[in-house]
Amino acid sequence: MATFVIPAEVQSHFDKSELVAAIAQDVQSSEVLMLAWMNREALELTLRTGEVTYWSRSRNQLWRKGATSGNTQRLHSISYDCDGDALLLKVEQVGAACHTGERSCFFRAIEIA
Amino acid sequence: MATFVIPAEVQSHFDKSELVAAIAQDVQSSEVLMLAWMNREALELTLRTGEVTYWSRSRNQLWRKGATSGNTQRLHSISYDCDGDALLLKVEQVGAACHTGERSCFFRAIEIA
Repeated sequence: MATFVIPAEVQSHFDKSELVAAIAQDVQSSEVLMLAWMNREALELTLRTGEVTYWSRSRNQLWRKGATSGNTQRLHSISYDCDGDALLLKVEQVGAACHTGERSCFFRAIEIA
Repeated sequence: MATFVIPAEVQSHFDKSELVAAIAQDVQSSEVLMLAWMNREALELTLRTGEVTYWSRSRNQLWRKGATSGNTQRLHSISYDCDGDALLLKVEQVGAACHTGERSCFFRAIEIA
């Protein structure tokens, strides 16, 4: 069983019932894949199982990434930012991260002319 | 003068007075540097000037990155995600992105044993 301690800076947001933002980055290519959200339970499940689980704000429930699509994210490492309200997950992405079938959710650029 | 169109998916969040999350990634190293927030004015200023400007939720005002520290972010490109509530900015970071002096705000890992 994996052991870990939720950092106080991150816990302080959970204590206020705030979600923290979670950025998933491909551990091999360094491509940023998606941005989603975590509550304490999602973060603990992710750390405990090594399978990335988010909190779905639209469905208001835990969401194990790839549970239906098979496009899972295996956790490699997690960092947290200076004010503890954002996490950076390095992951091994199976297939596409985006529900559209694109590898990354950030597949469209704003054109600047 | 740079010309651009704010994508409808992103604009829909501004229409609801919601901020969008903005991930800054080093265009050379692909390191994720920080996560901050943008309203429409911040995004337009960023696109128009090429100097990254966020919306500070704590100070409730526009915040041109590096305005006081000199640690500016020069915009290279911007993508937006599938539901239009997150932006990925590739930037040329001058000095440290983090107010602590670290290059990235994500400088601490959650240890898993």
